Amino acid sequence: MENDEVILLDFWPSMFGMRVRVALAEKAIEYEYKEEDLFSSKSPTLLKMNPIHKKIPVLIHNGKPVCESFVVVEYIDEVWKDKAPLLPSDPYERSQARFWASYTDKLYDFGRRIWTVKREEFVEGKKDLIDPLKLLEEAALGDKPYFGGESFGFVDIALIGFYSWFYTYETICNFSIEAECPKIAAWGKRCMKRESVSKSLADSRKIYEVIIEFRKKNGLE
Amino acid sequence: MENDEVILLDFWPSMFGMRVRVALAEKAIEYEYKEEDLFSSKSPTLLKMNPIHKKIPVLIHNGKPVCESFVVVEYIDEVWKDKAPLLPSDPYERSQARFWASYTDKLYDFGRRIWTVKREEFVEGKKDLIDPLKLLEEAALGDKPYFGGESFGFVDIALIGFYSWFYTYETICNFSIEAECPKIAAWGKRCMKRESVSKSLADSRKIYEVIIEFRKKNGLE
Repeated sequence: MENDEVILLDFWPSMFGMRVRVALAEKAIEYEYKEEDLFSSKSPTLLKMNPIHKKIPVLIHNGKPVCESFVVVEYIDEVWKDKAPLLPSDPYERSQARFWASYTDKLYDFGRRIWTVKREEFVEGKKDLIDPLKLLEEAALGDKPYFGGESFGFVDIALIGFYSWFYTYETICNFSIEAECPKIAAWGKRCMKRESVSKSLADSRKIYEVIIEFRKKNGLE
Repeated sequence: MENDEVILLDFWPSMFGMRVRVALAEKAIEYEYKEEDLFSSKSPTLLKMNPIHKKIPVLIHNGKPVCESFVVVEYIDEVWKDKAPLLPSDPYERSQARFWASYTDKLYDFGRRIWTVKREEFVEGKKDLIDPLKLLEEAALGDKPYFGGESFGFVDIALIGFYSWFYTYETICNFSIEAECPKIAAWGKRCMKRESVSKSLADSRKIYEVIIEFRKKNGLE
């Protein structure tokens, strides 16, 4: 695998892209990062490599594309299997990890409104963020350091990209996720101590700035 | 695994439940089928075994529940790994199978309207069925007998439940899927020759009858 060519098509604020970045960092895989500026237009490479969904992240491994964040993370875990396993080896634990990872996508139902709705409507919908977070806290995380237990893994990777958006959600909605979900907040801080996470996540303040700028430009603020 | 207790909570017309039924049949796993009558109410067992989504299918293996159809099918493939592999062994081929399997869920965007919209609106939306089917035909199936090539597998299982609904869609919309997507139609007939499929799928006519009855009762016809 030393001579493998690994390229990631990504867009810096994407929580789905961050999943792949963290997975690659956990495995210490060297890769070329190619930024897709989705505020402007999609590159010919993206359209060629993901003609079906035309979305990032796309991992291009020795010329062959893998699309959809969970599919990519599982692919990474299977190809580079000797280092930092992301999914548990036990089939039942794997099924539970896949179940909860997929559940984290629910947070996006709330998040996507940031591009389209006025502040009042966005604030009104905040239970669509808090309810699934509380459920993840109670039913999946509990008192464990990571979702999978002692070691950082698939569900942590699934959720961590959203963590970098918390500051934006909290600032726009004027509330504290830490007050509502203290264990999730502590989990996020714990993850941020890992270099694989802190170096892969987008800067929370920078996300807030571009979102506010976007919202102003589109008459949402 | 001979003394394993395997129970499936399911609802006979569910295309998601059919995925699990076919996977169990491919692996020749004996199990107890427990029907959830979702036209009336959800059983205490279902609410206990899938408290998060409260949806079928749920596979209960030695008392422990696994939820979400793709998670269940992968679980089955991993636990009963010695017989009839459903996912390919090569990581890249696995990634492509997961990608296309997940893509088949797009068909449900069209299908769910059958419960809620008038006939005209349903017919108008038929491109939401045809377009993804054509794409599956051209980009994923091609001239192969099955989606994975020579052997029946994960993507076939993902799509086959929808096949049993084609008659209902065609009859309500008054069109022919075979005329639009001849290779998909031939693929469906090919799959139906497998006992694992023909014995697991709901009867197409029976689906049509209950759907028409439901639609009449709800003022949609």
